[in-house]
Amino acid sequence: MADKGPLLTSCIIFYLSIGGAIFQIFEEENWKSARDLYVKEKEDILKKFNLTKENLTEILKVVSEAAGQGVAISGDKDRSPWDWGSSAIFAASIVTTIGYGNIAPRTKGGRIFCILYGLCGIPLCLVWISELGSFFGERAKRLSGVMIDKGISVKKVQYTCIALFLLWGLLVHLVIPPFVFMSMEEWTYLEGFYFSFITLTTVGFGDYVAGVNPDINYPRLYIVGKELWICMGLAWLSLFFSWNVHMVVDASKVLKKKWQKRRH
Amino acid sequence: MADKGPLLTSCIIFYLSIGGAIFQIFEEENWKSARDLYVKEKEDILKKFNLTKENLTEILKVVSEAAGQGVAISGDKDRSPWDWGSSAIFAASIVTTIGYGNIAPRTKGGRIFCILYGLCGIPLCLVWISELGSFFGERAKRLSGVMIDKGISVKKVQYTCIALFLLWGLLVHLVIPPFVFMSMEEWTYLEGFYFSFITLTTVGFGDYVAGVNPDINYPRLYIVGKELWICMGLAWLSLFFSWNVHMVVDASKVLKKKWQKRRH
Ligand SMILES: [K+]
Ligand SMILES: [K+]
Repeated sequence: MADKGPLLTSCIIFYLSIGGAIFQIFEEENWKSARDLYVKEKEDILKKFNLTKENLTEILKVVSEAAGQGVAISGDKDRSPWDWGSSAIFAASIVTTIGYGNIAPRTKGGRIFCILYGLCGIPLCLVWISELGSFFGERAKRLSGVMIDKGISVKKVQYTCIALFLLWGLLVHLVIPPFVFMSMEEWTYLEGFYFSFITLTTVGFGDYVAGVNPDINYPRLYIVGKELWICMGLAWLSLFFSWNVHMVVDASKVLKKKWQKRRH
Repeated sequence: MADKGPLLTSCIIFYLSIGGAIFQIFEEENWKSARDLYVKEKEDILKKFNLTKENLTEILKVVSEAAGQGVAISGDKDRSPWDWGSSAIFAASIVTTIGYGNIAPRTKGGRIFCILYGLCGIPLCLVWISELGSFFGERAKRLSGVMIDKGISVKKVQYTCIALFLLWGLLVHLVIPPFVFMSMEEWTYLEGFYFSFITLTTVGFGDYVAGVNPDINYPRLYIVGKELWICMGLAWLSLFFSWNVHMVVDASKVLKKKWQKRRH
């Protein structure tokens, strides 16, 4: 810390300041016009339906209180957000620390349980994800072993493995999924890509959540596949990070040994 | 993976199933009564203000579209959620992967920038947090060194350090902050505790976010202090995890050496 610390801290502060300025440029104008539109529309409503300002305030209070309790404010179909399946998916959003927040506990009991649940669940999930990552890592090592036995040069095998690994991550976790979301969720490609990125980094804003639109009848395969895809993505990332640190060193050691064996 | 893998996977599936069932028990009843209340209140509104169902649907459509653009649907004071300060705090919510989602980019440009921003920012923040953690770890080691020099037994020093470390985390990051939130945000103790836990685990549902209530004039010190508190908490957690793995081994080695030196 003594050497890198102040530099890193300045970097972070600078990065956040710049980020703040750029997000402001992109978003503030859009927010202002949305707000102005809303103010205008509210006035239109007052005139059109012969309401006073107090009447509308009363209506909006009811609506925002319902929204605060997690009730869908418009639309007729109300699928329970707390049936067993949705609750289990919510539980998964805690332990992975994605935390979309499209549903969140509103009762005291639910909140206390949520804390206890995360306390055990988050470490458990971390261990599982890293195990899953090293499972795939082992498979990759075995594959490279087979390739070396077939007489392909070590360097070629190394590069192929790295390329396959990166290509897999890029295709399976970022480039292809948006197409699935385009057909299932009626999102644009950018929206699907944004959702994939925000999910797999475990940021999870919750502005886009797959599989929760009450107007769409999702096939069960899609819901299960989506959860598996998230786990696979987190495992890939875990592998990516541990690979950045160890893998390169480890793999080259293993490969060198094999290579030396073959030469003797 | 070969040995622990299937067991861990079953554990996770079991844990999520049980979690789903318990969350359903806690939350579904509450949601149903909130929904029934909302249905009843909507009917009351229709009668009271002499509106047709179609009129109300039209109003609700306007409201939910405004909400979708991040506009506050009720209340008169509208502080911009995208001024520079709020945008910088939003940027911090990306790089720490907390991602409350109380504000999230709505424009195409903002979303693309958000992806690029996270791509560099998340690793940068990870490195910074772990550096911050090891900075505090170094201080703790130095403190224990001073204590040993003063003639306190190694075991006592070790236990004191561990106790202080855990006590610090518990008090500064979980037990005391809710009192601050109680006075500043008008939350209950449980709400403040829930917010602290959900924030420091980086789950970040966004149902409670400190410092964004438009009806409250926050002192700047509170806003800055809150951000620092989040960073300190993440550093503490990073230290806690690395300590679980390395610290015990490391510290005992260092302490043993010192102890042997003193005996000779
Ligand atoms: K999160
Ligand atoms: K989140």
